Amino acid sequence: MARSAKRRLVLGVDFGTLSGRALVVDADTGEELGTAVHAYANGVMDERLPGARKPLDPDFALQDPQDYLDVLARAVPLAIRRAGAAPEEVRGVGVDFTACTMLPCTSEGNPLCFLPAFRANPHAWVKLWKHHAAQAEADRINAVGARRGEEFLRAYGGKYSSEWFFSKLLETLRKAPEVYAAADRFIEACDWIVWRMTGVERRSQCAAGYKAMWVARSGKGWGFPSPDFFRALDPRLERVVAEKLSAELLPPGARAGGLTPAMARAMGLRPDTPVAIGNVDAHAAVPACAVTEPGKLVMIMGTSICHMVLGRTRKFPEGMCGVVEDGIVPGFFGFEAGQSAVGDIFGWFFENCVPAATAREAKRRGVRAPDLLEAQAAQLAVGESGLLALDWWNGNRSVLVNADLTGLLVGMTLATRPHEIYRALLEGAAFGTRTIIEAFARQGVEVSELSACGGLPDRNRLLMQIFADVTGRPIKVAESAQACALGAAMHGAVAGGIYPHIRAAAARMARVRKKAFLPDARAHAAYAPLFEEYTRLHDRFGRGACATMRHLKALKSAARRSKDRLRN
Amino acid sequence: MARSAKRRLVLGVDFGTLSGRALVVDADTGEELGTAVHAYANGVMDERLPGARKPLDPDFALQDPQDYLDVLARAVPLAIRRAGAAPEEVRGVGVDFTACTMLPCTSEGNPLCFLPAFRANPHAWVKLWKHHAAQAEADRINAVGARRGEEFLRAYGGKYSSEWFFSKLLETLRKAPEVYAAADRFIEACDWIVWRMTGVERRSQCAAGYKAMWVARSGKGWGFPSPDFFRALDPRLERVVAEKLSAELLPPGARAGGLTPAMARAMGLRPDTPVAIGNVDAHAAVPACAVTEPGKLVMIMGTSICHMVLGRTRKFPEGMCGVVEDGIVPGFFGFEAGQSAVGDIFGWFFENCVPAATAREAKRRGVRAPDLLEAQAAQLAVGESGLLALDWWNGNRSVLVNADLTGLLVGMTLATRPHEIYRALLEGAAFGTRTIIEAFARQGVEVSELSACGGLPDRNRLLMQIFADVTGRPIKVAESAQACALGAAMHGAVAGGIYPHIRAAAARMARVRKKAFLPDARAHAAYAPLFEEYTRLHDRFGRGACATMRHLKALKSAARRSKDRLRN
Repeated sequence: MARSAKRRLVLGVDFGTLSGRALVVDADTGEELGTAVHAYANGVMDERLPGARKPLDPDFALQDPQDYLDVLARAVPLAIRRAGAAPEEVRGVGVDFTACTMLPCTSEGNPLCFLPAFRANPHAWVKLWKHHAAQAEADRINAVGARRGEEFLRAYGGKYSSEWFFSKLLETLRKAPEVYAAADRFIEACDWIVWRMTGVERRSQCAAGYKAMWVARSGKGWGFPSPDFFRALDPRLERVVAEKLSAELLPPGARAGGLTPAMARAMGLRPDTPVAIGNVDAHAAVPACAVTEPGKLVMIMGTSICHMVLGRTRKFPEGMCGVVEDGIVPGFFGFEAGQSAVGDIFGWFFENCVPAATAREAKRRGVRAPDLLEAQAAQLAVGESGLLALDWWNGNRSVLVNADLTGLLVGMTLATRPHEIYRALLEGAAFGTRTIIEAFARQGVEVSELSACGGLPDRNRLLMQIFADVTGRPIKVAESAQACALGAAMHGAVAGGIYPHIRAAAARMARVRKKAFLPDARAHAAYAPLFEEYTRLHDRFGRGACATMRHLKALKSAARRSKDRLRN
Repeated sequence: MARSAKRRLVLGVDFGTLSGRALVVDADTGEELGTAVHAYANGVMDERLPGARKPLDPDFALQDPQDYLDVLARAVPLAIRRAGAAPEEVRGVGVDFTACTMLPCTSEGNPLCFLPAFRANPHAWVKLWKHHAAQAEADRINAVGARRGEEFLRAYGGKYSSEWFFSKLLETLRKAPEVYAAADRFIEACDWIVWRMTGVERRSQCAAGYKAMWVARSGKGWGFPSPDFFRALDPRLERVVAEKLSAELLPPGARAGGLTPAMARAMGLRPDTPVAIGNVDAHAAVPACAVTEPGKLVMIMGTSICHMVLGRTRKFPEGMCGVVEDGIVPGFFGFEAGQSAVGDIFGWFFENCVPAATAREAKRRGVRAPDLLEAQAAQLAVGESGLLALDWWNGNRSVLVNADLTGLLVGMTLATRPHEIYRALLEGAAFGTRTIIEAFARQGVEVSELSACGGLPDRNRLLMQIFADVTGRPIKVAESAQACALGAAMHGAVAGGIYPHIRAAAARMARVRKKAFLPDARAHAAYAPLFEEYTRLHDRFGRGACATMRHLKALKSAARRSKDRLRN
């Protein structure tokens, strides 16, 4: 492995749901030199705490912060070794993290769950983004926020999610006041890990803006809601911002500090190596897709889709997840929206609905069943299946912001075949994205082309073509298979002074595939009446006129509760 | 095989879609002594005529009348031999047939398709009940009938089907006028086979009433529509009834004639053995379920469900298939309704939606996959799946009478499992039957208990329990596995003078199982809100407010047509 003393390398560390990935990149060329993954030993804790017998409540999803530290101590040195990099070559470090993933800690940054006194208390651990036990708290926040006309509700498309910062914090206050009292800080995991790396508590504007109500108030600049609001929520919360959050907030790419000697030793890097302010994983992918200007929608396509687009002015499209100035790329407003299940729906279909005959036929042809279904589905003309799906197997994140919505499939006949259902699911996902694009457009946030990264674009070419045809827009695909880690590394390059801003970094480090997915004009036209039907069902089932989905969910919950009672 | 000279036996011959069955029954005890099945050599011809290369048009479904004669010559002697019966012991013969299954023939009863000049003409063959190529003709009949306020439309719940007699006849006139001109008679297959057996053309009131517009006109007794109506339909049809249909019409159980010597020889019976007037297969099953009075709904449960109930007065429930005085049991009005796909939907699900994992698990436990799914589905509480299905995979026969309706499934989440979908399909079928029962009740046709026969009751106990729970009514199950053939034999016993009427025959010959399916009061109550949701979706998608299903079907047809054009 030849080393060049002149190399300027950067490190990106991407903290995902089940593992963390370290990626060493050449800051001058964008070349990815070495990578390593460390799977979290405690993964997602949704049944019990380590060593505990008592089951967690349903909807809990916790993590162990030690797993994050292990990523730094194990994956980072391995990636550096694989890259053949010398410590002094690494000029900057950036991290991105799932969000809102948050934890309580002491004033020194020590997680409460590390303290023996709190080890058995679920609320002392990290609440992962998909911890869903704080719906009652989110409902309370939305009710109080709406009554008081709080600005943050507008910035979040009208609804604050149970997944977000203050829902989880309020849950801790209500369910475990002793944890709340003992916590000097509540902090996003991306900010916590940067604090551990640098010894300084500096927080991400991006995370605060998208998850923690840190929004621009009309004519008053940016900030958290007032103590009045928090007191109205719960008198004990009046001074929560001053007491438990207050810290310097910085935009992406800003230098949070330098690596502490201890952390440098653990990671195999030089002390004082510059570390960028923490970032939200999806947002880090935007510059990695070479998008640093308005009009281009970036989609991280995996189990779900996260949609991000930049704008020059503040707007409030229906049902988006947030708008934050400088939140994604400094100088622009960053808008975020999402579909809560995409690849997850296809995975559900493959696991639960693909008949033995298809599996046998795939084996006979020596292909995987999903590939056989994709090939068969690709032979269908637009509309030929006669099917239509509402893609709400995991609720609807945008634009309806309703977790109680469920999936729908209509049009089945006795001649309906599995590949037709599969294609309807792909099309439903594309209609969902088109609905988001149109909601943005209605508020003046224009989208002229799409960029994609994540696992799906490589695995499912038919899906990508359908997205292009349904939306009528070309889709560029990021060349990197780990766009989030690459984006984090690019922010590390900015923090390390290699580039003055992320746009310059993106111009050199980000690459897209030569071959984009181009919309077929005839297919796009053929989708128009189908999308019209989708929209009709979307509005009928999603906008309250038809409460069927909510009623069925309520009956399901009641049936399960009554069954549980009979058992106990 | 011991024979008793005193035995009074009867023969029932059931002509189904793919085969005919002969059944020898002891008329005094109802004991089934011997049975034999003959599969039609030419089955259902939906691709081409025998020996022809030219494909039939889509939606064609033809049969060969020679196959019916072969049933008499092969299955009947075999059943008699198996019963150990002497020819002189057989005191009566009854037949039942699918309907409307009709053919053109000469004045001697010779099918036109037997004549070399017409052998290559599809319209010269038997048009089977599921021949679906006459929709345009049905549309014309409905338009003209509605404009003229024809009484028959009321008797058919507002719509005359493309499957019925005059739709098929008008199709022949329009598409093959030479066949129409050459045909001295158009006749139901049940009447044709009785004609062949006895040498006399006497027709079934039942078939004429349910399929051929022979209805009671206000204050004018019973009859076919007037020449004026037929002239309005097509001037060439003005005298169709007088020229091509006119014959004596008799109720079920009436003696049509005695076996001709030639036919007696072929069947291995005595000449002059009494033959009952032909019957529609589903209707023959009613007395075989021991139902000869109002208030009891008989369901023939197989690929589809046919519902029949008797009433004392003429009523017009929405969307029923017909009401005929003396049509099922003399002395009562017979009402018929139906669900166009039931077992067919479950079969579709097993073939297209059961994953390999379920198949493997079933194999491991040594059971069939459907049985495993049934066992798992039986563990679910009412509402627990969170799913709801509209059971319209093959359109809706009653009460909406709309072939363009399609299936719908709503409520899916990422946690939805195959047995939950399966249960939703079972429940959807039960909701469909409850909808029919309530439509009857709204017009004063009451149903207090259900009787079932056909293949499903034995194969699917969970389905039967769900039907009982959803409808809140007990379900008796016929003991005979071939209720239609048994019913035909019972009519043979009446025609042969063993019993004065079918009620007396049923009292001695029909048996139901001791163990009925009884509704569980709690489950019935729990189904109330689910049925409410079903009704809401049923009305929204079925009553025109939401045209999604029709639009999707139209887009599908357009997509297929345009693909065909590209290929040619």
